[in-house]
Amino acid sequence: MKPSIPKGTRDFLPHEVARRAYIFNIIQEQFELFGFSPIETPVLENLSTLTGKYGEEGDRLLFKVLNSGDFLRKADIEALENKNSGALTPSIASRGLRYDLTVPFARFVVMHRNELVLPFKRYQIQPVWRADRPQKGRYREFYQCDADAIGSESLLLEAEFITLIDRVFSALGLQVEILLNSRKILSGIAHVVVIADRVMEMTTSVDKLSKIGWSGVHQDLQKRGFTQQQCQEIEAHFRLPVDELGSVLAGDPVGAEGIAELQTVQSYLKQEHLHNALVVDTTLARGLNYYTGCIFEVRATEAQMGSILGGGRYADLTSVFGMPGLSGVGISFGVERIYDIMVELAKFPESLESTLQFLLVGMDEAALEKAFAMASSLRKLGITCSVHPDIQKLKKQLKYAHALNVPNVVLVGLEEDPNLLVWKKMEDGDQQILSFEHFLEEVTR
Amino acid sequence: MKPSIPKGTRDFLPHEVARRAYIFNIIQEQFELFGFSPIETPVLENLSTLTGKYGEEGDRLLFKVLNSGDFLRKADIEALENKNSGALTPSIASRGLRYDLTVPFARFVVMHRNELVLPFKRYQIQPVWRADRPQKGRYREFYQCDADAIGSESLLLEAEFITLIDRVFSALGLQVEILLNSRKILSGIAHVVVIADRVMEMTTSVDKLSKIGWSGVHQDLQKRGFTQQQCQEIEAHFRLPVDELGSVLAGDPVGAEGIAELQTVQSYLKQEHLHNALVVDTTLARGLNYYTGCIFEVRATEAQMGSILGGGRYADLTSVFGMPGLSGVGISFGVERIYDIMVELAKFPESLESTLQFLLVGMDEAALEKAFAMASSLRKLGITCSVHPDIQKLKKQLKYAHALNVPNVVLVGLEEDPNLLVWKKMEDGDQQILSFEHFLEEVTR
Repeated sequence: MKPSIPKGTRDFLPHEVARRAYIFNIIQEQFELFGFSPIETPVLENLSTLTGKYGEEGDRLLFKVLNSGDFLRKADIEALENKNSGALTPSIASRGLRYDLTVPFARFVVMHRNELVLPFKRYQIQPVWRADRPQKGRYREFYQCDADAIGSESLLLEAEFITLIDRVFSALGLQVEILLNSRKILSGIAHVVVIADRVMEMTTSVDKLSKIGWSGVHQDLQKRGFTQQQCQEIEAHFRLPVDELGSVLAGDPVGAEGIAELQTVQSYLKQEHLHNALVVDTTLARGLNYYTGCIFEVRATEAQMGSILGGGRYADLTSVFGMPGLSGVGISFGVERIYDIMVELAKFPESLESTLQFLLVGMDEAALEKAFAMASSLRKLGITCSVHPDIQKLKKQLKYAHALNVPNVVLVGLEEDPNLLVWKKMEDGDQQILSFEHFLEEVTR
Repeated sequence: MKPSIPKGTRDFLPHEVARRAYIFNIIQEQFELFGFSPIETPVLENLSTLTGKYGEEGDRLLFKVLNSGDFLRKADIEALENKNSGALTPSIASRGLRYDLTVPFARFVVMHRNELVLPFKRYQIQPVWRADRPQKGRYREFYQCDADAIGSESLLLEAEFITLIDRVFSALGLQVEILLNSRKILSGIAHVVVIADRVMEMTTSVDKLSKIGWSGVHQDLQKRGFTQQQCQEIEAHFRLPVDELGSVLAGDPVGAEGIAELQTVQSYLKQEHLHNALVVDTTLARGLNYYTGCIFEVRATEAQMGSILGGGRYADLTSVFGMPGLSGVGISFGVERIYDIMVELAKFPESLESTLQFLLVGMDEAALEKAFAMASSLRKLGITCSVHPDIQKLKKQLKYAHALNVPNVVLVGLEEDPNLLVWKKMEDGDQQILSFEHFLEEVTR
């Protein structure tokens, strides 16, 4: 048989694992520095936890796991006879694969409420699954990388997330723009254009602005029944500079609160020297329904990639699991996209290519035993090395070393004097003959 | 709804994630030091890759993922009408969850043969799934931690794995016994007792020795049709000291090769100062069929836990995927059991309890802004800190600090002089009043 892997999944070769770990480690280091703690949740969740949390589309994209054993014994007879796949599923599959990290986090908080202390700052870097149509840059199995701070309404959290985001992208060597807005400003605009009950519809349209422009947004709004007059007023408000918009929204309690939120966040940041631009963009909408306050988005300025981070304030994370009123702020790094951009812009350090520092080779049995002992001594010094386990022609050994991308080859046990070795530097072909003791001195110098 | 997670799965709280990462990091560090490279394979594999690789029991324990969409459209009609779950499954589920790391590794090697160079040394630390009955210490979702070196028959690899194993357990602070044997010695004994064609049956019985003793093994062998005479001869051979057994097996080519293998491995190790005992145990059998040469097992000497590592030489990893003759050696750390032992013996360093070094608290808005800026300065120095985002009574703040297990609390902005702060050490309650500049000096000293 010719083996394959499922569509939308990937194997990772060593250099890919190293690059992915490089990104994860930089993000993780900043999470820890800011006092976030790691948690992990299982890949398998009960479908009762996941279903209905991601909309109809989401329910369809959940991977469902077949119950074990004679699963048909408890199958829904009617659905079975009607060959109704959708109706049959709940009776033959009670578990599914994690679809994101937010719902499992909410479930985790409720289940462990007595073990946690609020405010609770957690991060989580784990894969998720979606039965979506795979395409370039979109996978069925991919990583998410989230941080949330829950149990406080303080805007200090928003400000802290902005500095964290700034530090992560600076450490990754990526130039970005950090966009900031408040959902309350969108509501305020809707209020003053007198379409208060249709804030979500307006938000959904405006969310498309960067893709379809204002003329596209007008069309989209009109399809939803907004009048031409309303469209023009909406656009006019979004085109106002923030301070002018502030005056316009001053009479609307929600809109004014949104403006004040941005001011408070900026006030926390006034002494902070950000590496990247922080841009208040009142048209920033973020698709997800559950955001209620400040929202963030990050775009790379050197690559065409769309959003590489999203996040925001939500008023209520856990009421769906029976624990109402828990507010928080969360962000999610688009690590798969960040990876693609880093590859495109060649931002990964070369040192990730190989961690192996030395390859030791022996030309006969006695030399191989010596190489084995030498490797042990090197490793005691923390030096990464490998012994070629076979006796082979030098040419073949060097070809292997080249393929491994190892910078140093040590040829152990010379014919003329078995106590001497040849240390060859692969970069320039330079080589020197020396004793093992002398070699160790050189290496540790 | 009251949320729950599937039986046999686990959430990990921050201190558990930290402890698990501690074990993984130590193992990973040694893998890298020995020149092993990381790979990752997807959680979802095609069932055609997994089915038939783990025996009938294994096939039953595979988690199968329901096909997306209208999966009944392509369902096996006959199986559906007969309500035959087993026969129906292949037509409605084409993917499953990874069951171990060995079969995916074999699949990986065959698929990426042109990108890999042999010998190839890889490690892999990822979760696997088995629909087994959960019990104490046995989970349905758990981690495996494997290293394999393939593409060489050299016994240097076996010797290298023994030093690697020794270093890992020494770094973890666990005392262990490393058991070594060769499958060829078991064959040799079977040959001289003239039961050559029943090596596997004998091996399976002897594998139970540590659990059921020799009288149990006799019973088990007799059930399989071995005569009492054969049982006694088998026991007598296994009771021989290795050098005497060597003389007995000298005339059997396979048995003699097994003895020679152990000698070669020991010869490589003669200059090595192992921290743990290496014990040749001719009764060591290892359950798995695919081992053909040296086999290893590790037992903790301070805990009753059974095997915490298994491994060995196999002659053929990949022929099932169309690539015959690829020999290698692999080991698998029983990380879940190692975790349990480390908890039982209190071997985790206390520093894992919390990485947070400072909690900053402010008593009013101005102080909170100051705390925000101070936290930024601390983080620039690499110091892990968190700001309590809310203004609260000091007593409540200290209670929070206590729950977080943070060693230092900094109270920012004193009433009498907003430029002063109080640095309180939680361990002894010691506190000093100083300026931020002075505090920074002290912290970085």
